[in-house]
Amino acid sequence: MAVAQFIPSSSSLTKRTTLYSSQLSQYLSSTHKPLLTLRRTNYAKICCSVTSNEVQAPVAKQSNDPIKKPECFGVFCLTYDLKAEEETSSWKKMINVSVSGAAGMIANHLLFKLASGEVFGPDQPIALKLLGSERSIQALEGRAWEQCDHAGVAMELEDSLFPLLREVSIGIDPYEVFQDAEWALLIGAKPRGPGMERAGLLDINGQIFAEQGKALNAVASRNVKVIVVGNPCNTNALICLKNAPDIPSKNFHALTRLDENRAKCQLALKAGVFYDKVSNMTIWGNHSTTQVPDFLNAKINGFQVKEVIRDTKWLEEEFTEKVQKRGGVLIQKWGRSSAASTAVSVVDAIRSLVTPTPEGDWFSTGVYTNGNPYGIAEDIVFSMPCRSKGDGDYELVKDVLMDDYLRSRIKKSEDELLAEKRCVAHLTGEGIAVCDLPGDTMLPGEM
Amino acid sequence: MAVAQFIPSSSSLTKRTTLYSSQLSQYLSSTHKPLLTLRRTNYAKICCSVTSNEVQAPVAKQSNDPIKKPECFGVFCLTYDLKAEEETSSWKKMINVSVSGAAGMIANHLLFKLASGEVFGPDQPIALKLLGSERSIQALEGRAWEQCDHAGVAMELEDSLFPLLREVSIGIDPYEVFQDAEWALLIGAKPRGPGMERAGLLDINGQIFAEQGKALNAVASRNVKVIVVGNPCNTNALICLKNAPDIPSKNFHALTRLDENRAKCQLALKAGVFYDKVSNMTIWGNHSTTQVPDFLNAKINGFQVKEVIRDTKWLEEEFTEKVQKRGGVLIQKWGRSSAASTAVSVVDAIRSLVTPTPEGDWFSTGVYTNGNPYGIAEDIVFSMPCRSKGDGDYELVKDVLMDDYLRSRIKKSEDELLAEKRCVAHLTGEGIAVCDLPGDTMLPGEM
Repeated sequence: MAVAQFIPSSSSLTKRTTLYSSQLSQYLSSTHKPLLTLRRTNYAKICCSVTSNEVQAPVAKQSNDPIKKPECFGVFCLTYDLKAEEETSSWKKMINVSVSGAAGMIANHLLFKLASGEVFGPDQPIALKLLGSERSIQALEGRAWEQCDHAGVAMELEDSLFPLLREVSIGIDPYEVFQDAEWALLIGAKPRGPGMERAGLLDINGQIFAEQGKALNAVASRNVKVIVVGNPCNTNALICLKNAPDIPSKNFHALTRLDENRAKCQLALKAGVFYDKVSNMTIWGNHSTTQVPDFLNAKINGFQVKEVIRDTKWLEEEFTEKVQKRGGVLIQKWGRSSAASTAVSVVDAIRSLVTPTPEGDWFSTGVYTNGNPYGIAEDIVFSMPCRSKGDGDYELVKDVLMDDYLRSRIKKSEDELLAEKRCVAHLTGEGIAVCDLPGDTMLPGEM
Repeated sequence: MAVAQFIPSSSSLTKRTTLYSSQLSQYLSSTHKPLLTLRRTNYAKICCSVTSNEVQAPVAKQSNDPIKKPECFGVFCLTYDLKAEEETSSWKKMINVSVSGAAGMIANHLLFKLASGEVFGPDQPIALKLLGSERSIQALEGRAWEQCDHAGVAMELEDSLFPLLREVSIGIDPYEVFQDAEWALLIGAKPRGPGMERAGLLDINGQIFAEQGKALNAVASRNVKVIVVGNPCNTNALICLKNAPDIPSKNFHALTRLDENRAKCQLALKAGVFYDKVSNMTIWGNHSTTQVPDFLNAKINGFQVKEVIRDTKWLEEEFTEKVQKRGGVLIQKWGRSSAASTAVSVVDAIRSLVTPTPEGDWFSTGVYTNGNPYGIAEDIVFSMPCRSKGDGDYELVKDVLMDDYLRSRIKKSEDELLAEKRCVAHLTGEGIAVCDLPGDTMLPGEM
């Protein structure tokens, strides 16, 4: 597997620590070659200590701190000059990865994958910045432990001893947590409550993503890559990018990779081949039931799907539904959400951007339509076929086939996204919202 | 990271499939170079189809099948001759990994790690055989879907498209699921019910592990490596190995790696160093509150712990408790079990056996005491310091320090394990059980 070549645009490597214990002083003075350079931090208030030793003793936050930071956690309050140590001096510069919804099930899988090195490579040290939920904010009124609903996962990350994981911090203010973020993985979103209309869901989540867009615009790396997982993810991504005018709109993604993976699996099952034989799979449009898994351009063993699966009825009538219903089957039959496979698909989505796309293949991701060659409406977030050189950026694939069936399906998803856009106009700075949404198209299992 | 060099002792690579669809026949006849060799399987009854196409259509099981097999799942019912394809011809022979408790939270993390290649390496194809729980057995009375409580995780594994994962099968009979197993990861165990005495827990889980030991003895690879995670894991491992006389007792492990990892983290926190600076950490004894995290032999930056942490009171009175209580803190404070970090520690335990131990270091694992150099009672499963050449085997580390404090703590854990052994004598073939267990020593959060 090729190693990620993506070089972050801003350095996050700082030397800092909250440590000045007597034991450590003794230790440092008793060794002739101290491996660490230590200085007092100026943002050392710690909310989530789980042990009572001096490493985590609270220190007053200096009010003249020019940059707000989330609170570090436990052993991760230590950060070293990686270049000063033999075993880490060949590593890349540390990257900052911010994750919202970090106390949830998807993040519970994803954070360990990020920390293990399997996403960004074995020489890429990583800082994880966890954004707390609204529950955390409410709990701020005095209850010290509960304010840190991400402390449990941070504690498990500590116990996992991942060598590449050099920093874990937790905060509830996106303006702190997104500081210098080079990747923002936005998983957290409000689920739909009983009786809530789709417009209500768009509004309540839209507000979260508007706020997070503003925060990214203010404090994140100027080339931050944003992957929106929280649903409705396409329109959430649109709201987010509209609120972050100083960050390239191109850098915002809505996750449709799980749909792509599921579509490949269903074609493989039908054709009787292993799933690694399916390539060039596009998910077009919205991450909803109007999504279009494209069997016209997909290939099986290099052959067009229709040459291998000669059952047009199945392709046109059953295939798409099978892809959409996977999440619902999981929930209904086994009472489990697709957390693990969603996390895998986020890993796939990141890897597709930081490793060169194999010759002749492509991947799907929901991106901003700005000069697309397919005749899709501009100024929405639409899943389309993309290729990457492995630098974190991508380009649209231009030589795809279109037929009437595909075009009509794409049009339906486009119409839906345009309606969603009108419904969140108050959040994108484009006037008064008008909600004329078509029927409910949330994917089963993703309410 | 070094790549696993462990070569499995028996081949599990077979060519088989349940496929003979008309589409596939058309496909194969329409291509001049078929990549797969297909033949009908003789064990093709499938219980867990989640789609309705012909790939998963039930086929009568032949009654003269000489070897019972678990049921394959979905796309994994296809198995190929890996050597016949360009991209897989350099891969190692597929290994069979059997996992019990595969519907639980620990396995939900572990299975995806196994499938991704991060455990056994990027050129090691893998077959996962999932052992269903008693709930599955009960559900066998006619309810087709519920009988497969592992089908949900199998479906998510399908959707993850792991190239190395070539087979997933599900069964409820260990004599089927352990067939040719080269690794058996025994996670499943009964939790203690309300009012259940520890002796009752030992008995009910001991019976499960006696049965699984017999099954391993009958059908697993003659050099299978067994890692027992289900608690009480030391005595479960002893029962298992006693019921598998044809498999080397040396091959059975009780997982104490999470304790080792936690101990390293706590020493790092206290010393104010990153956890990768802590080495030579031994957990002695039972995976219970009598466990002995060894600060006499552990090192920090190559120095003895006592040279770095000059707080003997903390080391003797607080350190061990901090290690033990991590799981309890997670449960009590955040309502989460340590599933993710336990799965990471299983990965660490396997990697420690399939990669050479770094020079001068060691790892902890609960193994059969047979000629140990520490004066610990023979014929129990006791966690001790071990090294490996990376061939799946290990040797005990001999040059460790002992002092009165360490010896007295080890003695207490030894006494406990000897008492547990007397309490399961009916399951190890050593006569009538006598339960004179000391007080309750289950770890918090592991009831």
